[in-house]
Order: sequence, then structure tokens, then C-alpha cells
Amino acid sequence: MNATNTTTDLPLVLTMGDPVGIGPEIIVRAFERGELRNAVVAGDAAVLRRAGAAMTALVDEPGDLAAVPPGCLPMLAVPGLPEGLAALPWGRIDASAGAAAARCIEHAVRCVQQGRAAAIVTAPVHKEALAAGGVPYPGHTEMLQALATSAGSTPPPVRMMLANDELRVVLVTIHVALRRALELLDFDAVLSTLEIAHAAARGFGFDAPRIAVAGLNPHAGEGGLFGDEEIRFIAPAVQAAQARGMDARGPFAPDTVFMRARRGEFDLVVAMTHDHGLIPVKYLGVEDGVNVTLGLPFVRTSPDHGTAFDIAGQGRADPASLLAAMKWARRLAGSRRKVG
Amino acid sequence: MNATNTTTDLPLVLTMGDPVGIGPEIIVRAFERGELRNAVVAGDAAVLRRAGAAMTALVDEPGDLAAVPPGCLPMLAVPGLPEGLAALPWGRIDASAGAAAARCIEHAVRCVQQGRAAAIVTAPVHKEALAAGGVPYPGHTEMLQALATSAGSTPPPVRMMLANDELRVVLVTIHVALRRALELLDFDAVLSTLEIAHAAARGFGFDAPRIAVAGLNPHAGEGGLFGDEEIRFIAPAVQAAQARGMDARGPFAPDTVFMRARRGEFDLVVAMTHDHGLIPVKYLGVEDGVNVTLGLPFVRTSPDHGTAFDIAGQGRADPASLLAAMKWARRLAGSRRKVG
Repeated sequence: MNATNTTTDLPLVLTMGDPVGIGPEIIVRAFERGELRNAVVAGDAAVLRRAGAAMTALVDEPGDLAAVPPGCLPMLAVPGLPEGLAALPWGRIDASAGAAAARCIEHAVRCVQQGRAAAIVTAPVHKEALAAGGVPYPGHTEMLQALATSAGSTPPPVRMMLANDELRVVLVTIHVALRRALELLDFDAVLSTLEIAHAAARGFGFDAPRIAVAGLNPHAGEGGLFGDEEIRFIAPAVQAAQARGMDARGPFAPDTVFMRARRGEFDLVVAMTHDHGLIPVKYLGVEDGVNVTLGLPFVRTSPDHGTAFDIAGQGRADPASLLAAMKWARRLAGSRRKVG
Repeated sequence: MNATNTTTDLPLVLTMGDPVGIGPEIIVRAFERGELRNAVVAGDAAVLRRAGAAMTALVDEPGDLAAVPPGCLPMLAVPGLPEGLAALPWGRIDASAGAAAARCIEHAVRCVQQGRAAAIVTAPVHKEALAAGGVPYPGHTEMLQALATSAGSTPPPVRMMLANDELRVVLVTIHVALRRALELLDFDAVLSTLEIAHAAARGFGFDAPRIAVAGLNPHAGEGGLFGDEEIRFIAPAVQAAQARGMDARGPFAPDTVFMRARRGEFDLVVAMTHDHGLIPVKYLGVEDGVNVTLGLPFVRTSPDHGTAFDIAGQGRADPASLLAAMKWARRLAGSRRKVG
């Protein structure tokens, strides 16, 4: 196996996330369960050892995985990590922890950009630790956008998709006040979300993805009686998407469209707000929810939870969502190559 | 059995709903399945016959049920119903249909107010048919509020609860544009919802109901970063409720609080908007969702769906939600008497 391998056998790269959050723990737990097959961790060996890894093996290339002795957790040698990460107290915002998390993300992105890894799975980072560490991005999404952009170009528009085994939801607005979301929503926001969602869904194997658009207001506005956003720009954006050949439908009443998608009527649902979309994805349990960033030139998934500073270092963190994120990353990377 | 019977054996009264919607059908279907035990329909015999009832038996009092011959659907003789209801086309807005639906509701309310029935279960009405029929209320809730109010008094504040076997949600705002809901939400709206929810939950058997309050914004505002409603009035309303002895908690992130309630951490959830609350209740299926009006001096439940004019008269309507509404009405009426 070498660095230009293009088969579906390319490894995943996992970033360790914030060193004092639950990221290292859930990675070690996944490894102990034998679920790190063909995946390598971009992180700090001492941090992973503190999180419970009995033995780690450093590799320079994701493709060198085959040379890792059995029972050793494969670590990608990330240059420039701060010293002393494994001595930091668990669950506290720390500048060097934030900086280290960012270094690992950069390194992982370089691996996929250079065709040396199939996809990135990111363990959670802490927004305030990133800021303390001098990282000029508020979170993963903005950082990945910037890393995917060549100098002087505009960053690609991206959208967050939340998925579990029965539902896929793409969000038009995310981490803003609901009041602000109402201001941000317009024809362009909805149409560009539909375009990103459509292209991504084709990329991961749906030939003609059936996309339902959830309305914003109760009963999708009930013909204008409960709000006019559906009439003013959501329905027109759906029609514009149809005119461009997409199988987009709606807007539908938010309170029943997710149930209809769950039953198989749609392949994915576009939701106007963070909670309209996330309430149904998380309702049956957060463990198997996965966050996928759509619109990037590479596959990136992450577990659907944060650094959980309150339980970090206690051995209580559940790797289920990380495992689901790895499964989705493999699936999406595999389809992407097949389609592309 | 007589009109002043106060045991839990008092019958339910079902209103037939809009005569040209699916109300009559789902009642007949429930009857055919043997599920109308100790319940009587306030409606029109010809309408119920057209909906498939082989035989109906008119009674003057709910308490006369015992005299109804086996195999006959028991109908309460509602005075003043318009003529020719059973000749109306299915699924069309009609003035006399709206007027008839309202008469049945009035009659049913009188039965429970006079202690002749245990609770009311209402089949769906159509807002535009009510208006066409000269009914001065936009829907059930306002009509029931008015009927529960003596002349010159202020109508009791009511709230909508949506419930299924695993989740109970009480809504602060309901059928208004999301933009308008943001204007209507304030300290008083949240606190009065908590008071109504607490009193109602005690009324139906929870000694010290554990009430979770869902925030309005993503992550419940993330400390003010994504909106300040949680800080300005939701958290203060929760604290005020606690000071009045209620076990109210929150505000919690909207995207995970319903999952937590489903797992048993809370007895009910107060949601700020129609769709935050209804998305999780309906996600697993609308069939077993029930609408309960809290704050009235009597028990009223209804199925969690509308008149479904598009399928009325075709024999396709599912009585599952009506059956669930009857089950809840019996349960709530039983507990209310036990507690009261």
C-alpha cells in the first residue's frame, strides 16, 4: 500500500479532538472493541495512553498501517504538537489543548487532500479551547472550509447533515438564535441547501434523491394563515430546484415530514432550523447520530456530541456515535469513489 | 345508572365532528371493533349510518346506555341539528356541517358539566366549516373555553398537551407564525403554562410531576451566544415555578430534552413552539398521538389529526388515534375523580 492508493481500502483518519475531553477515550474504547480496523489516529501518543491505550505505534503515513503490530493503536505522527498534553487536567478549557486539536485536524485534512486517506472522522473540539489556543476558526466546519479553499478563493458553501440509520436531515441554519435564523432564511439559503444536499446525496449513492423540504411555521403556514415564509420563498425555492431537475418536494408541515421520511417516503429532509432538524434525529437516542459536513471536497463525519468535559477522564464516555461516524465515513467515501 | 352517578363508570361522550370529514367513519370503525364500551356519540344518526353504522339507537341520557340493544351504536339525541346532513358531499366545507359539529360539542359539554358523562372526546372539526356555519369560535379550544365560562367571567387559560404512550408535551404557543410566537413568548406565558401543566399532571395522577422546560434556541441559547430568551425569561419562569413548589427544571437544549423525557427522566415537557413539541410526539407515528386540553374544568381529549377531507367517505380512515384519545379520556377522568 502506498500514498497514492486509490482503492476503497484507503484508511480513515480520526482526529483525537480536544485532549482533555472525551475524544481520546472514545477512540481508545473503539480500538479496544476491534473497531479501528483500517483507521489511524491523528493525535498525541501520551494523550491516548492516558485515555487507556495500552500500546500505541507511530506511523508517518496512513498507508503504513499494515506494519503496525497487532494490539497497538496506530498513531499518525502529527508534527508540531505542544508538549505536556497528557499532564493537563481533564475537562478544563486549555490553550494548548485547543491548539493541539487544531494541528491534528490540519494534518488529517492534508492526508485526505493528498489521497493518502479515504475520509476524516473528527472527535469533538471545544470552541473556547480553540479560541484560547489562537485558532482563528470558531469550530470544525469553518476550519475545514478554510482548509479546503485555495488562497484567494471563496470557501465552498457547506451544510450540516445529521443522520442515523433511519433519517437524514440537512439544515439551512444552525448555531444562531432562532430570531436570527428567521432573518437569515431566504430563497437563496433554501435553494443552495437543496443544491448541496442533492449533490451530496448523489455523491453517496442516491441516483435521484427524494428531498422533502420542511416548512418553517406550524402546518407549513396553513396557506399563509400562520406565517408567509413558505409562500414568499420556501415554495419558490423548491420550484426552482425542481426546474433544475431535482426531486425536491414541499414545503411540508414540520411536525409530520420527519415521520414520513422515517417511513421511507423521502431520502432526506431539509429543515429550516437547528432544532426542527435535530429533535427527530436525536429523539430515539443520540448514540447513533452522525454529523456529516456536506459541500466539502472530501468526506468528513463526526460523532453527534461534544467534548463532554463533565465526564471526561472517568471512563464513562460511550463510543457508539464515533463508531457510527466511522461507518458513515467509510460508506460515503466508498460511494463517492464509485460515483466519481 | 342515573344522571348524578359519580363513579368511574360514567360514560364518555364522543362528538361526531364535521359530518363530511373522517369523524363519523372513525367512530363507526371504533364501534365495530368493540371499542365503544360505555361511550355514547353526540351526533346525527343518518350521518353515522352513512359512515357505515348498521344500526343506531337513540338515547336521551348518557346513563341510558345499558338499555341500548347489543350491536347498536348508541347515539345521544342532540336537539337542533340541521336537516339533510347525510346527503352532503364528503370532504367539502359546508355551513350546516359546521353548525352541526358545534351543536354536538355544546351538547357534550352540557353532559359533563351536569355530571352525566365522565369526559368528552371530540372528533375533528373544520375551521372554515365552523366559520361558514356561523360558529363564533375558530376551533374546539376557544369554544370549550367559552362553554366552560360563566357569563361575565374570564375564560380559563388553557394549554394544549400532546401525548402518546412515551411522551407528554405541553405547548406555550400553538397555531401562530413562528415569528409571532417569538413575540408572544414571555415570562408570564411560560410561568402560566407551567402552572397549568403542573395542576393538570397532579390531576391525572402525578403527585409531584417532574416537568422539563425546553429552551427556544439551539443548545438553549448556549449561555446567551445563540439568543437570550432563556436568560431573559425562560430560566426566571422556571425559578418562579420552583419557588411555588413545582418540580420544574431547565431550560434544556430542545434537541435532547424530548429524548430524555422519553427515557423516563421527566413526566412532561413544556415546549415553546408548536413544532418543537409536536415533531417528537409525531415522529414515531401520528396514530397513537392524543390532544388533551389542559386547564378546563372537565376532561377533553381528541385524536391528533384533522378532518382529512381528502380521504373522507372512502373507508380508509384509521381510528387508532380516536381509540387512544378514548383511552386517555378514561384514564384522566378516572384519576381526576380519585384525586379530587
